[in-house]
Amino acid sequence: MDFELDHRLAGSSIELGRLGRSRVLLKNNAHFLWLLLIPETAVTELHELPADQFEEVCGQTRQLSTWVKDAFHVDKINVAAIGNIVNQLHVHIVGRSRDDVAWPGTVWACDEKKPFSDVELLDLQTRFTLAFNSARRG
Amino acid sequence: MDFELDHRLAGSSIELGRLGRSRVLLKNNAHFLWLLLIPETAVTELHELPADQFEEVCGQTRQLSTWVKDAFHVDKINVAAIGNIVNQLHVHIVGRSRDDVAWPGTVWACDEKKPFSDVELLDLQTRFTLAFNSARRG
Repeated sequence: MDFELDHRLAGSSIELGRLGRSRVLLKNNAHFLWLLLIPETAVTELHELPADQFEEVCGQTRQLSTWVKDAFHVDKINVAAIGNIVNQLHVHIVGRSRDDVAWPGTVWACDEKKPFSDVELLDLQTRFTLAFNSARRG
Repeated sequence: MDFELDHRLAGSSIELGRLGRSRVLLKNNAHFLWLLLIPETAVTELHELPADQFEEVCGQTRQLSTWVKDAFHVDKINVAAIGNIVNQLHVHIVGRSRDDVAWPGTVWACDEKKPFSDVELLDLQTRFTLAFNSARRG
């Protein structure tokens, strides 16, 4: 399909790669390990996806949550589909730590921003590729 | 299993009924149509549920989102599993309107509260029972 990433999502994030029919972005905010899972669709509500794509997105959310929790040793995973401001469907998968700047509040109410360094971004990109290489080939 | 609802979830909500192995609660805040879906489990992370229960909870989230969107004519559904404060696994399904008190912010950053009247609660309870009666029997 003819899919174009919303400029607000693209502008605040770095694309890590793909899972199936979805893109995986990293929010460029080193305060959190914050992923965006974006199925290539024009549908704006998660529950309005066709059944097969809904199941796919749920499975991808599970994969990414597992990766963030296990690889980055965070204390809690926060997952959400909100979309009140940016309408394009995107699922947040956020690794939270008890000592992060927003704890125990949510990241959506937090204005603190700190871009990743180039070295950090390269490291995260590499780790994502290693973790999901076989999935991306499949 | 021996499951006890967290007293903070129980204290702020009214139980509407059950879907499969999950309870469905209504937050007692008339500013929003805000449901809590609580699978009876000791697991605290959505992605750590056994595969069959994870799929069940995703399907129930979809059912409840569809109901809230269609029956209450809201503008947007917000779904999330956060659990930074109350550890017991609970999925938020929130109907949002462009003229609600928190729009376009999230409900978790909103302190506004207004209890439902007894008449409103009875109406919501009845509508839930009518909508999910067959599912609850199944």
